[in-house]
Amino acid sequence: MNKIRILGIDTSLRSSGVAVIEVSGQQMRALAYGRIQNKASLPHTGCLAAIHQEINKLITEFEPDEAAIEGAFFAKNAKTAMILGQTRGVVLAACALRTLPVYEYSPRSIKQATVGAGAATKEQVAKMVMRLLGLEEQPQEDAADALAAAICHAHQRGLPEALRSKPV
Amino acid sequence: MNKIRILGIDTSLRSSGVAVIEVSGQQMRALAYGRIQNKASLPHTGCLAAIHQEINKLITEFEPDEAAIEGAFFAKNAKTAMILGQTRGVVLAACALRTLPVYEYSPRSIKQATVGAGAATKEQVAKMVMRLLGLEEQPQEDAADALAAAICHAHQRGLPEALRSKPV
Repeated sequence: MNKIRILGIDTSLRSSGVAVIEVSGQQMRALAYGRIQNKASLPHTGCLAAIHQEINKLITEFEPDEAAIEGAFFAKNAKTAMILGQTRGVVLAACALRTLPVYEYSPRSIKQATVGAGAATKEQVAKMVMRLLGLEEQPQEDAADALAAAICHAHQRGLPEALRSKPV
Repeated sequence: MNKIRILGIDTSLRSSGVAVIEVSGQQMRALAYGRIQNKASLPHTGCLAAIHQEINKLITEFEPDEAAIEGAFFAKNAKTAMILGQTRGVVLAACALRTLPVYEYSPRSIKQATVGAGAATKEQVAKMVMRLLGLEEQPQEDAADALAAAICHAHQRGLPEALRSKPV
């Protein structure tokens, strides 16, 4: 059975969740998870550079085959969308520079794939992620979201080709 | 007289203008200018990676001291802002990773600094940039915008400390 590694990312300027899972048939296990924390005092540019570097390090250390991000944000206004977009651009470029294909899933699809309900709470996602991966402790919220994105992608990969999502 | 080099960038996913000028007192000259062109067939992620790489190469080749970008976009909607934001994030991170401070100027300030009128047309900007830098030919529009951003920053640097803009 081929093993594949998925990098999950929950993109955010100050606290991006990141996770790597390994999938082998129906088995999934977490290799690493945590978050990229940027202090409130760090300027935007410094945060963006740190996110690039950390994603790059994760790719070097865990050699994931594919990446999954939470996407289709519905930003309230153009200013919020711009800030989200900046962070997202850095994540996409960091993956593309390492030729890592990135798949994007809506928050609803990710909740559906983990909890089985598109309107699940963050708490429910974290609990279900813990159970699905057999973790001993409930992961922090952003890390749980990154794990959930990776799990959602693992499910998608099990679908017939025609139903699978395409990389962005 | 200290010479300083300014990298000017007019950010865009498919055709970013880029320019490097050297400033020595009241003298300015263009060292290089052009654009990073991404084919319409290239996916967003590929464009973002290409922009990162090209900015990085320019920094390596010309060793600029500071960078100037056109900022304060007023995107029509959240979707446009997200796409602009992605490209902008990659540019900011590429500069920050090389510890290059980035200064941002509104389109109006850039036109004001080059043509002397905030409502100048792109054609007027290109003509004035050509004259100010003693170029033999009128630069292409995106390259002219990048040169204009760099010229705007050169002017700002001549102002008293308290009036100068701060890096983003």
